[in-house]
Amino acid sequence: MQSIIPVKLPQNAYEIHIATDGIKDIGQKAKSLNIGQKILVISNPEIFNYYGQIVIESLRQEGFEVDHHLIPAGESYKTLDSISSIYDKALSLRLERNSTMVALGGGVIGDMTGFAAATWLRGINFIQIPTSLLAMVDASVGGKTGVNHPQGKNLIGAFYQPKLVLIDPMVLKTLPEREFRAGMAEVIKYGVIWDKELFEQLESADNLKSMDVLSPELLSYILERSCLAKAEVVGQDEREGGLRAILNYGHTVGHGVESLTNYHTFVHGEAVAIGMAIAGKIALQAQLWTQDELIRQNNLIKKAGLPLDIPSSVNQEDLLNSLQLDKKVKAGKVRFILPTEIGKVIITDDISQDLLKTCF
Amino acid sequence: MQSIIPVKLPQNAYEIHIATDGIKDIGQKAKSLNIGQKILVISNPEIFNYYGQIVIESLRQEGFEVDHHLIPAGESYKTLDSISSIYDKALSLRLERNSTMVALGGGVIGDMTGFAAATWLRGINFIQIPTSLLAMVDASVGGKTGVNHPQGKNLIGAFYQPKLVLIDPMVLKTLPEREFRAGMAEVIKYGVIWDKELFEQLESADNLKSMDVLSPELLSYILERSCLAKAEVVGQDEREGGLRAILNYGHTVGHGVESLTNYHTFVHGEAVAIGMAIAGKIALQAQLWTQDELIRQNNLIKKAGLPLDIPSSVNQEDLLNSLQLDKKVKAGKVRFILPTEIGKVIITDDISQDLLKTCF
Repeated sequence: MQSIIPVKLPQNAYEIHIATDGIKDIGQKAKSLNIGQKILVISNPEIFNYYGQIVIESLRQEGFEVDHHLIPAGESYKTLDSISSIYDKALSLRLERNSTMVALGGGVIGDMTGFAAATWLRGINFIQIPTSLLAMVDASVGGKTGVNHPQGKNLIGAFYQPKLVLIDPMVLKTLPEREFRAGMAEVIKYGVIWDKELFEQLESADNLKSMDVLSPELLSYILERSCLAKAEVVGQDEREGGLRAILNYGHTVGHGVESLTNYHTFVHGEAVAIGMAIAGKIALQAQLWTQDELIRQNNLIKKAGLPLDIPSSVNQEDLLNSLQLDKKVKAGKVRFILPTEIGKVIITDDISQDLLKTCF
Repeated sequence: MQSIIPVKLPQNAYEIHIATDGIKDIGQKAKSLNIGQKILVISNPEIFNYYGQIVIESLRQEGFEVDHHLIPAGESYKTLDSISSIYDKALSLRLERNSTMVALGGGVIGDMTGFAAATWLRGINFIQIPTSLLAMVDASVGGKTGVNHPQGKNLIGAFYQPKLVLIDPMVLKTLPEREFRAGMAEVIKYGVIWDKELFEQLESADNLKSMDVLSPELLSYILERSCLAKAEVVGQDEREGGLRAILNYGHTVGHGVESLTNYHTFVHGEAVAIGMAIAGKIALQAQLWTQDELIRQNNLIKKAGLPLDIPSSVNQEDLLNSLQLDKKVKAGKVRFILPTEIGKVIITDDISQDLLKTCF
C-alpha cells in the first residue's frame, strides 16, 4: 500500500510517499532522486536504535556512502549548538553540494536537520523520514526548519524544502501513546479547517487514542488527507503571507497555555486541543458556527484522549495578555482563526475583549 | 546622478541604486519599500563612525524606529557567534517579520547581516549599503550570505536576496587604497569574462589605483557595468548550477594562493589578480586566446597596482595540490574558467597536469 502526494511549490516540487513498511525501501527511493553519493543520517539515540540500521543498510545497498550523527532527544537540544555539531560532522565527512542529510526522527530532528541542510554550503539535499504522527502530518509539508533561541521557540530558521518525505505508518508502533494522541490533535485540526470528509471519517472511528485501534487503511487515509490538506494550503501560500495562517487554528491560545504552564504540563498537541476547544467556543459566541458543530469537534478531541479545558492553574488575565505576545500579532491586534462550519475557517482580528473573556 | 539596475530573479526582484551622495537618502528609499517600522542597522565601529549617523538620521526622518548593532571589523569575526549576537539584538528589539536589517559595511558585514536576516523568524527584510568596492561590485548581487566555519570560509550560509542595494560611490573616499585596488580586481574580472566595453573603458583610464584618479562618471560607469554583468549572470543561474561558475574566474588559483600564504600576504582581490594572470597563461598555452589579449589583461591588472606573480614562497607542487581542495571540484577534476577572448570565457575540466605545470 503506497500513496504519493505531490507537493507543488513555485520553485520546488517534491513528493510525500506514504508506504506501509516503506522505510526499508528508502535506498531505492533515494536512488531515484538526482543526488550525490554521500548521505548523513541525523537522528536521536532512541529512534536510531529502532530504525537506524534499516535505513543505513537500505541506503548502502544502493551504493550510497552513509554516516550518521545523533543528537540527544528533546526540545532542549533544539539549539544552534546542536546545529554546530551537525556542521562539524558535515565538514569531517566532506559533504559536497549534491550530498544529502536525512532526518530520521520527530519534529525536533526534522526541524534541525532541515536547517542544517539549508545552511551547509548554502543548501544541500534534505530527505525527511518522520517518525512521530505530529511530524508526519505537520512537519512533512511546509518547509519550516529551525531551532530555538534561549528566549523563544523557533525564532531562528529558514524555509527549506525536502527532496522527498517518506512516511511509513508502521514506525508509529514505537511512538509513545501520548505522542500519538498529541499528533491526532493536528489531524483533527485539518478536519475542522479544511477537510470535512476527513472530519467525518474521524467521527466514524471508535476511538483515536492509539495506533492499535485504527485500521491500517484508516491510518493511511488520515496521513494522506492530513498531508494533502497542508500541501494544498502551503501550495497557495508558501511563506505565510495569508492563507497559511489558518494552520494556526488552535495555536494562538494553545501557545499561551503552553507558555503559562512552562511547557511542563502539556505537550504541544494537548495545548492545541485546548486551543481548538476555546477557538470553537469563541466562534460559537461570535455566532460563526453552531453549538452542534462545536460539540462534534469536541467529541473528536475527547475521542483522541485530549484535554478540552484550560487548567485552573492558568489565570484568565495572564492568558489574555499572553495572546498579545504571539508571533502573528500585528499592530497589537490578536488574529484568530475561527471555524464557520466543519471544514471551513476565517481569519479575523475583530473579536472584542469582552467576548473573549466569556470564553476562557 | 543616479542609475537603477533591476535584478530579476524567478521569485525575487530588487533594485540596485547607484547614486552619488545617495546615502543620505536611504530613509526615502526605504520608505518606498513595503517594510515595517523597525530597522536594525548592522555595521562595524569604523564604518559606523563615518556613516552611521547619516543613515540613522535619514531613516528616522521617515518615521522608522532605528537601532544599531556593531561587530568588530575583520574576517575573524565572521562567525556563528557574531550571528548569535545579532539574534540577541533582534530579540531585544522584538523585531517582527516585516522588520528590516540594514548592512552598512563591506563584504563581511553584508554576508553576516544577510545570513542573520535570512534566518531570523525564518526571514525578514534585508537592505545592503555596501561601503567597499568589492562589496559594491560583488556582494550586492547574487544573494550569497553566510559565515565561516573554523575550518573553512563561507561553509555556513544561505541564498537570500535583499530588498534594495544602495551604492553611494562617494563612500569609497574613506576606503583604504589597498582595499580599493583589491575591489578593482573583480571589476577587471567582469571585463574579461563578460563585458568587452567595460574592459575597453578600463583601458582608457590613466590608472586604476585609487578613487582620486577616476572621474566620477567613470567610477559610476564601472560600478554600473560590474553590477549589471553580475546581475545578468546570476539572473540566468541563481543557485550556481552552471553559468554562475564563470564568476569564479581567477578564483580557483586565487584561493590556493590565499590559503598557502595563510591569508596574511594578500587580500582576496590581490590573490584573484594573480589567479587571473595564471588563468590567462593557461588559456594561452591551451591556445584559447592570444598573447596580445593576455598582455592587455595583465596591463589592466598592473594599472590597478595589483600583483601578477605567484610569490616565490609558494611551492608549485603545493599549489597544484591545493586546487584539488576547491569547493567546486567534482569527482576529483579541477574545473577552470578560461578566457577565449576579451569578454568571453569557457568552463573546462580538460586541462592536463603537464600543461598546468608550465603555467605556475
